[in-house]
Amino acid sequence: MNPIRVSIVGASGFAGGELLRLLLFHPKVQVMQVTSERYFGKPVSKVHPNLRKQTSLTFCGIDDLQACDVLFLGLPHGSAQKQIEHFLPLAERIIDLSADFRLNDAESYKKWYGQAHRRPELLQQFVYGIPELHREEMKSARYVSSAGCNATATILALYPLYKEGWVHADRTVVEVKVGSSEGGNKVSKASHHPIRHGCVRSFKPTGHRHIAEMEQELAFGQSLTIHFSATSVEMVRGVLATSHVFLNRSLSEKDVWKLYRHYYGKEPFIRIVKERDGLYRFPEPKLLAGTNFCDIGFELDARSNRLVVISAIDNLMKGAAGQAVQAFNIMYGFEKTTGLEFPGLHPI
Amino acid sequence: MNPIRVSIVGASGFAGGELLRLLLFHPKVQVMQVTSERYFGKPVSKVHPNLRKQTSLTFCGIDDLQACDVLFLGLPHGSAQKQIEHFLPLAERIIDLSADFRLNDAESYKKWYGQAHRRPELLQQFVYGIPELHREEMKSARYVSSAGCNATATILALYPLYKEGWVHADRTVVEVKVGSSEGGNKVSKASHHPIRHGCVRSFKPTGHRHIAEMEQELAFGQSLTIHFSATSVEMVRGVLATSHVFLNRSLSEKDVWKLYRHYYGKEPFIRIVKERDGLYRFPEPKLLAGTNFCDIGFELDARSNRLVVISAIDNLMKGAAGQAVQAFNIMYGFEKTTGLEFPGLHPI
Amino acid sequence: MNPIRVSIVGASGFAGGELLRLLLFHPKVQVMQVTSERYFGKPVSKVHPNLRKQTSLTFCGIDDLQACDVLFLGLPHGSAQKQIEHFLPLAERIIDLSADFRLNDAESYKKWYGQAHRRPELLQQFVYGIPELHREEMKSARYVSSAGCNATATILALYPLYKEGWVHADRTVVEVKVGSSEGGNKVSKASHHPIRHGCVRSFKPTGHRHIAEMEQELAFGQSLTIHFSATSVEMVRGVLATSHVFLNRSLSEKDVWKLYRHYYGKEPFIRIVKERDGLYRFPEPKLLAGTNFCDIGFELDARSNRLVVISAIDNLMKGAAGQAVQAFNIMYGFEKTTGLEFPGLHPI
Amino acid sequence: MNPIRVSIVGASGFAGGELLRLLLFHPKVQVMQVTSERYFGKPVSKVHPNLRKQTSLTFCGIDDLQACDVLFLGLPHGSAQKQIEHFLPLAERIIDLSADFRLNDAESYKKWYGQAHRRPELLQQFVYGIPELHREEMKSARYVSSAGCNATATILALYPLYKEGWVHADRTVVEVKVGSSEGGNKVSKASHHPIRHGCVRSFKPTGHRHIAEMEQELAFGQSLTIHFSATSVEMVRGVLATSHVFLNRSLSEKDVWKLYRHYYGKEPFIRIVKERDGLYRFPEPKLLAGTNFCDIGFELDARSNRLVVISAIDNLMKGAAGQAVQAFNIMYGFEKTTGLEFPGLHPI
Repeated sequence: MNPIRVSIVGASGFAGGELLRLLLFHPKVQVMQVTSERYFGKPVSKVHPNLRKQTSLTFCGIDDLQACDVLFLGLPHGSAQKQIEHFLPLAERIIDLSADFRLNDAESYKKWYGQAHRRPELLQQFVYGIPELHREEMKSARYVSSAGCNATATILALYPLYKEGWVHADRTVVEVKVGSSEGGNKVSKASHHPIRHGCVRSFKPTGHRHIAEMEQELAFGQSLTIHFSATSVEMVRGVLATSHVFLNRSLSEKDVWKLYRHYYGKEPFIRIVKERDGLYRFPEPKLLAGTNFCDIGFELDARSNRLVVISAIDNLMKGAAGQAVQAFNIMYGFEKTTGLEFPGLHPI
Repeated sequence: MNPIRVSIVGASGFAGGELLRLLLFHPKVQVMQVTSERYFGKPVSKVHPNLRKQTSLTFCGIDDLQACDVLFLGLPHGSAQKQIEHFLPLAERIIDLSADFRLNDAESYKKWYGQAHRRPELLQQFVYGIPELHREEMKSARYVSSAGCNATATILALYPLYKEGWVHADRTVVEVKVGSSEGGNKVSKASHHPIRHGCVRSFKPTGHRHIAEMEQELAFGQSLTIHFSATSVEMVRGVLATSHVFLNRSLSEKDVWKLYRHYYGKEPFIRIVKERDGLYRFPEPKLLAGTNFCDIGFELDARSNRLVVISAIDNLMKGAAGQAVQAFNIMYGFEKTTGLEFPGLHPI
Repeated sequence: MNPIRVSIVGASGFAGGELLRLLLFHPKVQVMQVTSERYFGKPVSKVHPNLRKQTSLTFCGIDDLQACDVLFLGLPHGSAQKQIEHFLPLAERIIDLSADFRLNDAESYKKWYGQAHRRPELLQQFVYGIPELHREEMKSARYVSSAGCNATATILALYPLYKEGWVHADRTVVEVKVGSSEGGNKVSKASHHPIRHGCVRSFKPTGHRHIAEMEQELAFGQSLTIHFSATSVEMVRGVLATSHVFLNRSLSEKDVWKLYRHYYGKEPFIRIVKERDGLYRFPEPKLLAGTNFCDIGFELDARSNRLVVISAIDNLMKGAAGQAVQAFNIMYGFEKTTGLEFPGLHPI
Repeated sequence: MNPIRVSIVGASGFAGGELLRLLLFHPKVQVMQVTSERYFGKPVSKVHPNLRKQTSLTFCGIDDLQACDVLFLGLPHGSAQKQIEHFLPLAERIIDLSADFRLNDAESYKKWYGQAHRRPELLQQFVYGIPELHREEMKSARYVSSAGCNATATILALYPLYKEGWVHADRTVVEVKVGSSEGGNKVSKASHHPIRHGCVRSFKPTGHRHIAEMEQELAFGQSLTIHFSATSVEMVRGVLATSHVFLNRSLSEKDVWKLYRHYYGKEPFIRIVKERDGLYRFPEPKLLAGTNFCDIGFELDARSNRLVVISAIDNLMKGAAGQAVQAFNIMYGFEKTTGLEFPGLHPI
């Protein structure tokens, strides 16, 4: 079989670079072009130093893009919808890593992003990019929109519980602890090392945009509110989501085990991590750096009906580039784990 | 006036060392003796390298203790109640940094610490050590029991809200992010640097012992449940508590400002930190290293009745040694801030 | 072709775990047994959490070892020579990751390790494990002894210069900056997180044992002294060696480029990293986490005859497990990079 | 006595903020004005969050400066010499924290800073700001120029050895490991957290400007070359200098002890740190955060005539603001340690 010819638009950012790394080593893929207006003409290893000696690709401009099989979009929010007309004719399939086509409902864009969507008629054509929820639709999809990193960690933790209707839908409190790479590669005073180092910074106590995705994916026809806060911690990659869920029935930890096993038992990228002893009893994001795993653990509060669900991902992998490749594999019928085998490092 | 003669029992631990640092520089105090069985005879700077060239004190044994004005106890949990008979005759006043006399109710020790208290009749004689809540009692107290670090950060954040009865008392979810010094100076695999480095470790999703203190101090005759979880992050000193409170009435952020100002406006160690812009919009524990501040900020969730309250302390200072000195100053009628003037460092 | 059957003795340590990760994913290898006396009977993922869902292997004891093609030894220093009699009959080939067979000369063990070697007659049968220096001998070798991590970073930086005789052999000063994983997985007060965090610790200003290897490999019949110091920094994996070399002739930076290109131009794991601008002008160990690269850069001091050579590796990879697999590939005639393709992560 | 009235020009930078913190708590000082063009009119706590509730000072402009007793200059390099005409009439005494008046020789500015000095005739009027070397001159000085941070750590380590002439003056190799605050508060891609985090970055292998100061202060009429390199490590504050010195005579460690004791025995801010065991055998910069200490340790290489001298400081304190206040105390005849008593934190 001929390799699938892919190009990456916006390949100089963190997620774009991670995608490029994955696709360069993907056995079924040939990377054709990678664009960056700022680094036009420069070798990709100038921006992604881990790719030194791995490729001789150089960045081209968006106007140089040629037709290919799949176009991955790694542009800043707002850019994809603005330029989508340019991209649609270039490729049979498009996987967008931005937030531009994540929400099904144009109204939600006004509410959460403060602007009317430019191409609301396209929203229904994009499949929301979490394969564990939308695998069947992906198989025949032309367009996939990758999920937000915090949304991915949260939705995967809560999905079985909300799907089954076992929770008080309006009481869940979620706190994510995130690394600095979530902010992207654009410098700012807030990410200046002497300022950002060692932070435990409550950067978004309320109003985080990813809430829109969570509520969309967990609704199942019901109204719900996710009470979400985000805190930056000393880390570059990684998300740890701690979800405090209030059960509407009596469950044992064994019941919860069964539930997660039922939903995720065959998923290669979801691991239930819950150990009685040892050094890593619950999910730990640092172990997932470079991997596509979402590790999920939990503990029942003996004093109340609270279930604490802990989930971890690498925001650039399962939270962005890795999940995009996972969707890509489904779209083409490849093995689920192709190109995503890296198990992560320990110690790290 | 003659200096107050103080001794520290159990001065080789992290909190004991911090206490020693504070008391050595306290203008009204003379440090008489410091004990450590393990480091008996050694200069204190061997264990607390920041005290090099600051003192020539050496550690003595508990049996060498002589009478003094105030005895500070920095022993591991369980030791203080076991040896209290030995300490009571030695000093007019005792300030205990352990958990041994924090709870008013002997039953609570069985429930939370799994053992009957050895001296339940003493519990009522100890004042719970948060001066902002118990200043009046401290003025005439002989015995003070320092509050837990996570409890201090949480209680100070929630106290005005619970006192006024403005919240759904059973719905509050609190998540603390803590540094590695909370675990003390005893080595373990879990605190081995290659393992602990870069962690976002859900070490106590439910069942943390400090909950007992929180519920004791926030009850005001009412029943309540604090849904508490603790996560370790990459940091040595510091606690950030994020409290998700659900209001039982409609409040504006201005109302919340007023409330905190009313309760804490004259407190020298509490600062309301809430800024519209800038790099430190909310409390940040790293800025508090070495200080006795508790910084408190908040944000109202526009979508619901959730109020997110963010509070930060240095666990070894406001969470232990600093708060003990603050109580000491009250007991002797000294200026509130004596010996606690250090404002903290920036950048750090 | 049948897979090569390998077993790892001492697989619960950091280097052993890394080796196991590499061999599990090596397409030509079948991992037969892994030993650990302490974790006997436990699944390997209990100790190496990155291997969850990757293997169902459990640890066995040394006495359970069966014959195989290659035995990798990951035991603490001193253990391999003590038990070598037990291992020799089990496998045609042995690759030892400890220091036990690194030095050619039994006298050196007395001098540097303070003890007579137990099996001096075997020393000549082990090839020193840096493939870039000993590839030809490895092709027919039965026994390979992996090089020390600091030694590898230093020797690869200095080899071309010493081989050509372009330097004052007695004047080189080398300083390595190392991460905490170099100390292994055994806990100690010095590696307790609150102590070790943020350190810049001069742990071995003089007398480091790896000097013996450096001077052995760089001698070329000449006497020489490497003035070596080691400092621990805040990092888990990685070594950065800064070598201050004093040239005995006038060279331009272009000459130095040529030299390194001549020696290493065809080596897949050595990259010359020296850029005029950009964020990663010189080698940076964090970029190499999980990779087998040794990146080398340099700068000539315009004011003197000093050449500063900067080299970086991942101590557990090119400094241990990765280099062992590199040697393994040579011994079996496999592609140089088989099983070692991971390019590293960015950002990290 | 009336307090000394001081103002700080350029008080929004890291060193300026540190200076402000020290002077606000200095019992003999009244801070009159602090300037910042960028933050004109804003409260200083907006920029220096550790000063919240400590002062109500706001930034003014340089043109608003009024006469005072001492003017501290915290401007970027080049600005002080450009505007010095404006400052001279304002205050009897000036202490400049920039590099503008550090070098005695105008030629050196051309060589190291690439530009002719604008006011070479003033250079001789500035005393180089290391009190341990220039205390006598400071007593009557009107102008003091603070020393560079790396220069301070290096010079204090080497001064006794060079003064006595015990070393090969041209062979010393110095490597400093520095934190990110050395780069100041101006953002850059290189200091973007995801890039700078976890770095061991060889940012100045040769050609660092502080070499000029080192060679000036260590010359004693002799020619000398300091072979200097600087590496950034994961840390915000702190410098560790490792100096590899080659002795021209046979010395024991006891001789070196005596030497340092002779030179520094009465210096309150220099501590000889060299212990046989324990966790902090040599100087460690993290222990010095917020302090004015320079800790110095050493080890003789048993194999050669190399002496490794290890010195640590806080770059913003002994390397900038603290040392400036130390000089100020001397100029006014105050106690050496006034305002500089903070002993540092442990653990940290």
